[in-house]
Amino acid sequence: MKIKYTLIKKEGQTDARLGTIETNHGIYETPMFMPVGTKANVKMLIPEELKSIGSGIILANTYHLWLRPGEEIIAEAGGLHKFMNYKGPILTDSGGFQVFSLAKPKDITEEGVTFKSHIDGAKIFLTPEKSIEIQNKLDSDIAMSFDECPPFPVTYEYMKQSVERTIRWAKRGKDAHKNSQQSLFGIVQGGEFEDLRKYSALETTKLDFDGYSIGGTSVGEDKPTMYKMIEYSTKHLPPDKVRYLMGVGEPEDIIEGVIRGIDIFDCVLPTRIARHGNAFTKQGKINLKNQQFKKDFTPLDEYCDCYTCQNYTKAYIRHLVTSDEALGGRLLSIHNIRFLIKLTEEIRNAIKKDKLLEYREAFYLNYKFRKK
Amino acid sequence: MKIKYTLIKKEGQTDARLGTIETNHGIYETPMFMPVGTKANVKMLIPEELKSIGSGIILANTYHLWLRPGEEIIAEAGGLHKFMNYKGPILTDSGGFQVFSLAKPKDITEEGVTFKSHIDGAKIFLTPEKSIEIQNKLDSDIAMSFDECPPFPVTYEYMKQSVERTIRWAKRGKDAHKNSQQSLFGIVQGGEFEDLRKYSALETTKLDFDGYSIGGTSVGEDKPTMYKMIEYSTKHLPPDKVRYLMGVGEPEDIIEGVIRGIDIFDCVLPTRIARHGNAFTKQGKINLKNQQFKKDFTPLDEYCDCYTCQNYTKAYIRHLVTSDEALGGRLLSIHNIRFLIKLTEEIRNAIKKDKLLEYREAFYLNYKFRKK
Repeated sequence: MKIKYTLIKKEGQTDARLGTIETNHGIYETPMFMPVGTKANVKMLIPEELKSIGSGIILANTYHLWLRPGEEIIAEAGGLHKFMNYKGPILTDSGGFQVFSLAKPKDITEEGVTFKSHIDGAKIFLTPEKSIEIQNKLDSDIAMSFDECPPFPVTYEYMKQSVERTIRWAKRGKDAHKNSQQSLFGIVQGGEFEDLRKYSALETTKLDFDGYSIGGTSVGEDKPTMYKMIEYSTKHLPPDKVRYLMGVGEPEDIIEGVIRGIDIFDCVLPTRIARHGNAFTKQGKINLKNQQFKKDFTPLDEYCDCYTCQNYTKAYIRHLVTSDEALGGRLLSIHNIRFLIKLTEEIRNAIKKDKLLEYREAFYLNYKFRKK
Repeated sequence: MKIKYTLIKKEGQTDARLGTIETNHGIYETPMFMPVGTKANVKMLIPEELKSIGSGIILANTYHLWLRPGEEIIAEAGGLHKFMNYKGPILTDSGGFQVFSLAKPKDITEEGVTFKSHIDGAKIFLTPEKSIEIQNKLDSDIAMSFDECPPFPVTYEYMKQSVERTIRWAKRGKDAHKNSQQSLFGIVQGGEFEDLRKYSALETTKLDFDGYSIGGTSVGEDKPTMYKMIEYSTKHLPPDKVRYLMGVGEPEDIIEGVIRGIDIFDCVLPTRIARHGNAFTKQGKINLKNQQFKKDFTPLDEYCDCYTCQNYTKAYIRHLVTSDEALGGRLLSIHNIRFLIKLTEEIRNAIKKDKLLEYREAFYLNYKFRKK
């Protein structure tokens, strides 16, 4: 079954949307944050923990799983859900982002991208059709079209050609995918150029995908630029299809993204900062390595309902983190993912009450932003 | 309350004992395997996981906790149980073993040991009284006497003097401990020398501890020598007190130890080998990095009741391990600790039926030993 997005309510003051997404693995409310399970696991965590903190869809990375263990092994295991023991929905990306960011492409042609594996340097060729074939074998609920994800900034001319090629690639991927019951999303690119975002959005929606992603954000641009990229894209997307902003997950970016009409977010941030001893709080990020937590026998957040906050103190987590005990990263990952999921729960409540701008104001009042 | 050991039954053919140990944090059957929670956590695992695999007492390391976070912080947190959220009993060692193995003593005198911290090289002085003071503050259920743990081999002369000093240290520790309701164990040393083991056992038991440990094993000797060290010690220990073989946890050593009258074991092995991708099985240790498991969609052990075996395949765990995903070590740790705890459960059943030798024979029939 293809996924089904239902728009339940538009917020009164902004472009924020309350909705549901129905999948073969359950129905979930949007706006939603997806934890990232790059290599067929959300780092250090088990599916039961993800469920207990309210996770819905999770993301897995096609590029990584293609290289290791290989899509054939996962197909033989009965697909990604069975392989990793995850009973909720899984979205796979196309591999494009990793090819462009991690593997550094050697050669981009109309046919596809030649690049070197970041594991062993082997020369590999990825095409729109191949990406779909791999994702079919992984048997995720939602697959992504293969796109070019240029860095920021590139020239207008480069971006124009890139967007056009990405649309041709989206068409090829859609054709390769046509007999599948897996859902497939198209990706809007176009950088910071309003007309290219519009062109990309309109041409991609013509291909009639099951949902639309916004790519090319979090690639080096500043936040006001990122927010413009989102606005330039969402306003040309059909209201009856779900919208996914790729790779974005700072709390303020989730709030700003929702305000601009985004339904789904994903980001490695909560688990990555956890492994470095950081926790999200309503007052901003804190680093548990800090001396001030040495004798702090209170939880990370006294209002948080996660396992970590229910059972452990900052002093204990600080001890684990400073002693290089992996349990510290595990406990912080649980809290940080819960923090972002709870944020989306609060956002959904604010949408229901048409008070999202008030919610943002209250959030920003307490939240200490990272210095740039 | 001091712990209470009750000898329920002696096995018919060997010196094996079935018993119970009553603590302020529950009653547990012996023979028992204690998982090691060096730095106030059993690496990567939470207390709920330990409980689900049948853990009773766990061990924490005084040396490590003294250096970091410091016993004062743990005391302020309300003791080790509260600090680490563990509701079962905790045994702390004396710090002696780590001082002699990890920190390398600078100077051993009658008064105590001067050594360099393995963290920052700071010069530190540990005495029998100080060890007890720290363990009191950690508020473990069971504390250990501070002993010298010489390497293997040392001369008879050296060992004799060391044993005599360890007995004097045991006396000093006992005096320092006399007002505490924490239980305190004495430690039998004496290397491979039968008369020194006897002397150490008799002199230590004269001091009337709440239980007795056998130290100086797993310090470089071969297995037949280790088994002799155990025999030389246990036969001089009182039957109404519990006996703990320190730092030993290979499956065959647990079986051989029980046969020689040991009740409690501890070892970092199950979690350490897990972090290197190894699993205990009834057929011996296997390394999941091995190619042969690439498409092995069966659990580590089809008869194992642990969470890992109920939910994951060797192919998946192999993928995690080869991809450096910490979840692999976590899943293997659960299985490996469960393996040793299940082994002690089976041993207890064999004792009940007076069939421990038959159990050993059947175990050895299938178990492939590590090459030395």
